Amino acid sequence: MATLHVGMTTLLHAVEVTGIVAFACSGFIEARRKKMDMVGVFTVAFITAFGGGSLRDLLLDRRPLFWVEHQEYPILIFVLALLAVPFLRHLQHAVTERAIVLADALGLGLFSVTGTSLALDADMPLFVSVMMGVITGIFGGVLRDMICNEIPLVFRRGHLYATCSFAGCWVYLLLDRAHVAQAVSVGLATVVVFALRMLAVRFDWKLPG
Amino acid sequence: MATLHVGMTTLLHAVEVTGIVAFACSGFIEARRKKMDMVGVFTVAFITAFGGGSLRDLLLDRRPLFWVEHQEYPILIFVLALLAVPFLRHLQHAVTERAIVLADALGLGLFSVTGTSLALDADMPLFVSVMMGVITGIFGGVLRDMICNEIPLVFRRGHLYATCSFAGCWVYLLLDRAHVAQAVSVGLATVVVFALRMLAVRFDWKLPG
Amino acid sequence: MATLHVGMTTLLHAVEVTGIVAFACSGFIEARRKKMDMVGVFTVAFITAFGGGSLRDLLLDRRPLFWVEHQEYPILIFVLALLAVPFLRHLQHAVTERAIVLADALGLGLFSVTGTSLALDADMPLFVSVMMGVITGIFGGVLRDMICNEIPLVFRRGHLYATCSFAGCWVYLLLDRAHVAQAVSVGLATVVVFALRMLAVRFDWKLPG
Repeated sequence: MATLHVGMTTLLHAVEVTGIVAFACSGFIEARRKKMDMVGVFTVAFITAFGGGSLRDLLLDRRPLFWVEHQEYPILIFVLALLAVPFLRHLQHAVTERAIVLADALGLGLFSVTGTSLALDADMPLFVSVMMGVITGIFGGVLRDMICNEIPLVFRRGHLYATCSFAGCWVYLLLDRAHVAQAVSVGLATVVVFALRMLAVRFDWKLPG
Repeated sequence: MATLHVGMTTLLHAVEVTGIVAFACSGFIEARRKKMDMVGVFTVAFITAFGGGSLRDLLLDRRPLFWVEHQEYPILIFVLALLAVPFLRHLQHAVTERAIVLADALGLGLFSVTGTSLALDADMPLFVSVMMGVITGIFGGVLRDMICNEIPLVFRRGHLYATCSFAGCWVYLLLDRAHVAQAVSVGLATVVVFALRMLAVRFDWKLPG
Repeated sequence: MATLHVGMTTLLHAVEVTGIVAFACSGFIEARRKKMDMVGVFTVAFITAFGGGSLRDLLLDRRPLFWVEHQEYPILIFVLALLAVPFLRHLQHAVTERAIVLADALGLGLFSVTGTSLALDADMPLFVSVMMGVITGIFGGVLRDMICNEIPLVFRRGHLYATCSFAGCWVYLLLDRAHVAQAVSVGLATVVVFALRMLAVRFDWKLPG
């Protein structure tokens, strides 16, 4: 059981880094499309990766913020942004769109589920906890699009995205109420979000318009 | 006196629900105009209704947030958003524009005045307390327009809106200093905002451009 | 030494007022370009002047906010906005663009450096403290452009701006670690930001695109 827990924690950490890099990449691409310079590229990538979690922490009054506690993550994005500016033209060839969708779905899952978990720890009511999870998962992208002067992609009729996050947060809530070990319920609920998102992209699932 | 107070409280609660629904409706309409799906419709309506109060609470460092304490309100907006998507085409026929302007003016009044009241409770200085009231009243709409990629309506030359809120907050301040019972001064100042707003719409009052 | 300190403090206070007025002016001009009324002109100017510091304080959980503690500053901007609306057409003749660039560079310097200083006081790690400084210096302008429905100017390829702030914050950090008296290190680092910014404008320095 302890081994399972350690293995799970290591795995979740790997998923976290994957998700952050995927979110940052979508920031890089959007910032470049808007012809921003290095300052814009870093800021948009940073906000895409950490905007959702920071908004959640402001709403819950949690400190220190995730990226303050883990200074290595903003530094990682800073270095990636330095590299991204000269290499981004090639990046779009090297990294397939499919890889970004995959990594982004992992990030969406993990960030949403941990957001709900933190909200429950802060004694939020159930529906609010689910909202906090969805905010954590999607508001980085919402803020990215607001800064880039676009209507947020997640609010336009595309393949299910926030809905997958919403469903996964409820799954986490149920597992948590059933006293499943936290690392396990985080893992399972993340997989639910990831699988739903992949199915939505694969089978063209959309909300009614 | 106690009866007056209970009656006043019930009335204020009814005004609160009316205001929230009116603000949410303006969010529904704007989100639909931008062809958003259910996720966007809910989020924009939610932010229109609670964005101003949440921003005030972040600035004042007040917790729990209003909609966290009253989980029934986000759930109400969620249900309304579910209903709004299929029925919104008909909603625009059923609910006249005049009804929305009326209900919105009630919400503007109550939210502004309670914002000022909460700021005074938090020992804010006078001008800042009035600003907090205006922020509570108008920033839901500002955030709605920012997300919908529009210059905020309230900053463009239309019929007086923020100005009515500003005037009503000063009226509340004066009544509060004169030791008028809170439920009464909230009620009176709300009426001032409402009446000013209705007069501005009726007689085409605008600020100089 | 005490005399130096008092002189320095008075000087920094003068720079603070200069910076606030310069930031507010850039808000006035942008709001007028978007044909906003008095409400928009005040709000945009206010957010340009205090948005960066307020965001920093929300992230650091610092209260009271700077403009709550110094109620005279929002009142100053309110009065300036009242005057600006009728006189702004003439203002653009009276105040040369060069004067605004100069005053803005002073504000950028002082706000960035004090932002880093406050972050260090709050025990933030080094890279995060520099980020907080840059946020304080540039996010007023970012929020101004977001409200005015533009891609933030500071993220587009112009003369170095955020980069000057970034460099100055590191200079402050080094002086602080070397136990230089605070008023002196704030002054020196502000001069570094100001000089870099002026050189960037003069010699057309830009980041690679």
